[in-house]
Amino acid sequence: MYEKRFMKRAISVSLKNIDKGGGPFGAVIVRDGKIIATGANRVTCNNDPTAHAEVMAIRKAAKKLGTFDLSGCEIYTSCEPCPMCLGAIYWAHLDRIYYGNTKRDAAAIGFDDSFIYDELDLKKEDRKIQIIQKLPNEAIEAFRYWENKTDKIEY
Amino acid sequence: MYEKRFMKRAISVSLKNIDKGGGPFGAVIVRDGKIIATGANRVTCNNDPTAHAEVMAIRKAAKKLGTFDLSGCEIYTSCEPCPMCLGAIYWAHLDRIYYGNTKRDAAAIGFDDSFIYDELDLKKEDRKIQIIQKLPNEAIEAFRYWENKTDKIEY
Repeated sequence: MYEKRFMKRAISVSLKNIDKGGGPFGAVIVRDGKIIATGANRVTCNNDPTAHAEVMAIRKAAKKLGTFDLSGCEIYTSCEPCPMCLGAIYWAHLDRIYYGNTKRDAAAIGFDDSFIYDELDLKKEDRKIQIIQKLPNEAIEAFRYWENKTDKIEY
Repeated sequence: MYEKRFMKRAISVSLKNIDKGGGPFGAVIVRDGKIIATGANRVTCNNDPTAHAEVMAIRKAAKKLGTFDLSGCEIYTSCEPCPMCLGAIYWAHLDRIYYGNTKRDAAAIGFDDSFIYDELDLKKEDRKIQIIQKLPNEAIEAFRYWENKTDKIEY
């Protein structure tokens, strides 16, 4: 259930992060009316291209709750998630996403999430980063081994 | 430039990771004919929904090279990247992607990357995880502040 104070907190994290040397993005993960974790964009500070606000908040929340499944939690993010973060949100099974700025707003200040969304819509052969299949007959062995494993944890 | 031995290594990482309690996915990041980092799926072991093989390899390679920009590197992954990992690859500016199994192969053993790809293609209002804009006029303040900052590191 949306609560304005959490959106304000995500925005406040995004603002404060600029003064801490990070990008203008903040996120908050909430469950049952309580903040579980916050995250801010630390890409350049941590030398980690995956350190977007949403990914940081998801990693922290999952660690704190001791589970890779964040069902029952909602994420408030100061900006519409990029494809990486949206993917992370789906894998984490978050219930709902509230966002402030749009991906077009992000592109306008030089963060080109829109470019990646556009690339995903192209056929593989038309994308900027080439993607080529190799050794499928060997790669599939791991999937066969996984399928036959009886004590695996699925998600 | 593709080298078969690196694809074989990614596949070997994916296989060994199953015995280490992880999912059947491995990745290798290569620059100038040398392995910079390997990564395996540790989602359930680390309680981290973002710990896919490609994300793990990117984080390690970026840390090792001391930069968030992996231009000049290629990634070999035992399976076609999911949207989260593909996004991470774009943000890391990797030069090229070689993959073994397809997303359909992954879906067939219960890893539903295809579902997330399909969701991304839907209009926001038709997606399974609701995504709702809130407080855009307040959120934009962080972007304005960022725009006016003179000593920022862009990427």
